[in-house]
Amino acid sequence: MEAERHRERIARCTALMRESGLDVLLLTKPANMTYLTGDGRLCAYAMVTRDGVVALGVPVTDVADVSALAVFDQIVGFDDEVGMIHSIAHYFQELGFEQGTVGLENTFLNGAMRGVLTHPHAKPAAVEAKDCTQVMTQLRIVKDDEEVALIRAAGGVAASGMAASLAAVRPGVSESEIAGAGEYAMRRAGAEEFYRSYVSSGRRTSIAHGLPTTAKVKTGDLVMIDLHPVVDGYGADICRTVCAGQPDAEQEAAYDVYLGALQATIAKVKAGVEMGELEDTMHGVMRDAGHEDHIFGPPIHGVGLDFEEAPLPAGHAFFHGEAAPPPLAANTAIAVGNCGLYAGPWGIRVEDTVIVGAEGAELVTAFRYGLTV
Amino acid sequence: MEAERHRERIARCTALMRESGLDVLLLTKPANMTYLTGDGRLCAYAMVTRDGVVALGVPVTDVADVSALAVFDQIVGFDDEVGMIHSIAHYFQELGFEQGTVGLENTFLNGAMRGVLTHPHAKPAAVEAKDCTQVMTQLRIVKDDEEVALIRAAGGVAASGMAASLAAVRPGVSESEIAGAGEYAMRRAGAEEFYRSYVSSGRRTSIAHGLPTTAKVKTGDLVMIDLHPVVDGYGADICRTVCAGQPDAEQEAAYDVYLGALQATIAKVKAGVEMGELEDTMHGVMRDAGHEDHIFGPPIHGVGLDFEEAPLPAGHAFFHGEAAPPPLAANTAIAVGNCGLYAGPWGIRVEDTVIVGAEGAELVTAFRYGLTV
Repeated sequence: MEAERHRERIARCTALMRESGLDVLLLTKPANMTYLTGDGRLCAYAMVTRDGVVALGVPVTDVADVSALAVFDQIVGFDDEVGMIHSIAHYFQELGFEQGTVGLENTFLNGAMRGVLTHPHAKPAAVEAKDCTQVMTQLRIVKDDEEVALIRAAGGVAASGMAASLAAVRPGVSESEIAGAGEYAMRRAGAEEFYRSYVSSGRRTSIAHGLPTTAKVKTGDLVMIDLHPVVDGYGADICRTVCAGQPDAEQEAAYDVYLGALQATIAKVKAGVEMGELEDTMHGVMRDAGHEDHIFGPPIHGVGLDFEEAPLPAGHAFFHGEAAPPPLAANTAIAVGNCGLYAGPWGIRVEDTVIVGAEGAELVTAFRYGLTV
Repeated sequence: MEAERHRERIARCTALMRESGLDVLLLTKPANMTYLTGDGRLCAYAMVTRDGVVALGVPVTDVADVSALAVFDQIVGFDDEVGMIHSIAHYFQELGFEQGTVGLENTFLNGAMRGVLTHPHAKPAAVEAKDCTQVMTQLRIVKDDEEVALIRAAGGVAASGMAASLAAVRPGVSESEIAGAGEYAMRRAGAEEFYRSYVSSGRRTSIAHGLPTTAKVKTGDLVMIDLHPVVDGYGADICRTVCAGQPDAEQEAAYDVYLGALQATIAKVKAGVEMGELEDTMHGVMRDAGHEDHIFGPPIHGVGLDFEEAPLPAGHAFFHGEAAPPPLAANTAIAVGNCGLYAGPWGIRVEDTVIVGAEGAELVTAFRYGLTV
């Protein structure tokens, strides 16, 4: 059943490879390997031919473990990077690719990793490297029911984490400890992992990427908490902003504007809607309330095997090597509320993950709103 | 004082740039920006000229925050990626670089990020991009006393985390929960962050990168725990392997071999020693005990602002875009025990972080050894 799902994905992949003129993929990005084979780990690779043959290379220590988890036709274990390079060369020869095109994950590979995969002892000189980012995006952008179920489960875990983080908010507690309370709760609730947590307080709520510090919350501070659990590979994204004390009238008003913008946007989510319309809605409500100069960041991103993935708003997508997104299809998962309202001395962000349905959005990060802890 | 330290680093940097034929650096790697300016954040960049002028670009929301933390001569805030690109072009013009060479972090940049920095609207066509990895490595490989103090502090936090993780080890607890207990303790003990924790149990202790899963520990399982706290930017690396029950004689014997190899290696650490000699010592003890086929992974890596940084063993270094390391200088920080002893059904790894001194090593991750919880 598991194997059947991955074989179906590999078949769809080979069709897209043909359309894109790719003869073979050489993948090292864990999310992409997981999607096609059921396993994605560090220091490993998956080659996929246009005929659907899957060849894996993993550390020699991992062959038994991977064999129990992944769908593949051939597997080889290597001792080190030199062995990895030689095993890739072996596969190119074995699979019959002395020329043609190999798809690499350009938007993922850094120069060192790219150097390994295109090393003259790995890739035949006549094989041309091309980018396969779009192939993998097209494959992964719409989720199947099992994937949706995992994102839903991650949403539940995210809510558990948020409850624990909020319970830790009080004057004198560090931003880092608030993050830790949520992370530990998410692990106990079933997350095997999480992406970097963001927790900021006071003036730091007004910066774009408020990673936690050891700064301590002061009475009356706003506290922004953004958590990202991973459940069986799939993520969810939740953010809440609260006040460690009594918010002032300006903060209350700004919060209401932001929440109104978020809810108006989520109300428009359904199959067929354009990402641009959602972005305009979110920004429009904030602009109309006089916060035009307080908006920063694209308000929406896709959710799945990656922390942030397609669909991304058109402007943002370009810089991530992604194409402008098509109208949203049912079973796409998105996080709404990724932009903030940055008023200067403080900021507000509230973010939820939803599944796009035929008639509307399913909220998977159900957790109460409001500035009160 | 803080500013003075960064100005001294910038002066050393410009000398290395001249030697390397680099006219200007364009940095986006947080560790490198932190080293030279005192602040390194996401979605930001630092340009450093061979005359020591530092120009920063940050999200417009972050200008005040960065201004309070970083050393720089010019700063600009941008609204989005288009603004970022235009601000880079502005600086190239303003700083007088219409031709020459710009140093980019090849081993850090993925294709998408590289595309932004070398976009025709950012980098003048006549400015040639070169790799600046070696310049930054040479700058950062030997730590000053303040850096050593932070790595020492991180070592103490690592020990607190290990104590909490070990206290959570018992049959029925998930690998993920054991990780979470340690992470939460590290945040409470003063870490603002940590790198990905590795926790594996049972058969999974024999894989190369044992990231935690929701698998539950069973009676008699070995459990491998590898933690990496970050304190004021600087890391420490600790790993312990314990048994959730009574280890068998073979496990006890293998543990003793591994610990002997680790201690023999640490005993050889002092200024002037070659990394290769340390690697040979570690592997040699294991080989001599009959575990030649059970060794996987380079046994040593540098520790500092990055999770793993120079010095790296020569073979491994090449694939990370680093040069073969020079003999260790005093005030270099290294983690010893990064390789494992993988016996098949289980594995053992014990790792400590040490500071290289004139006469020997200072252990910064002091925490008891032994298979017993």
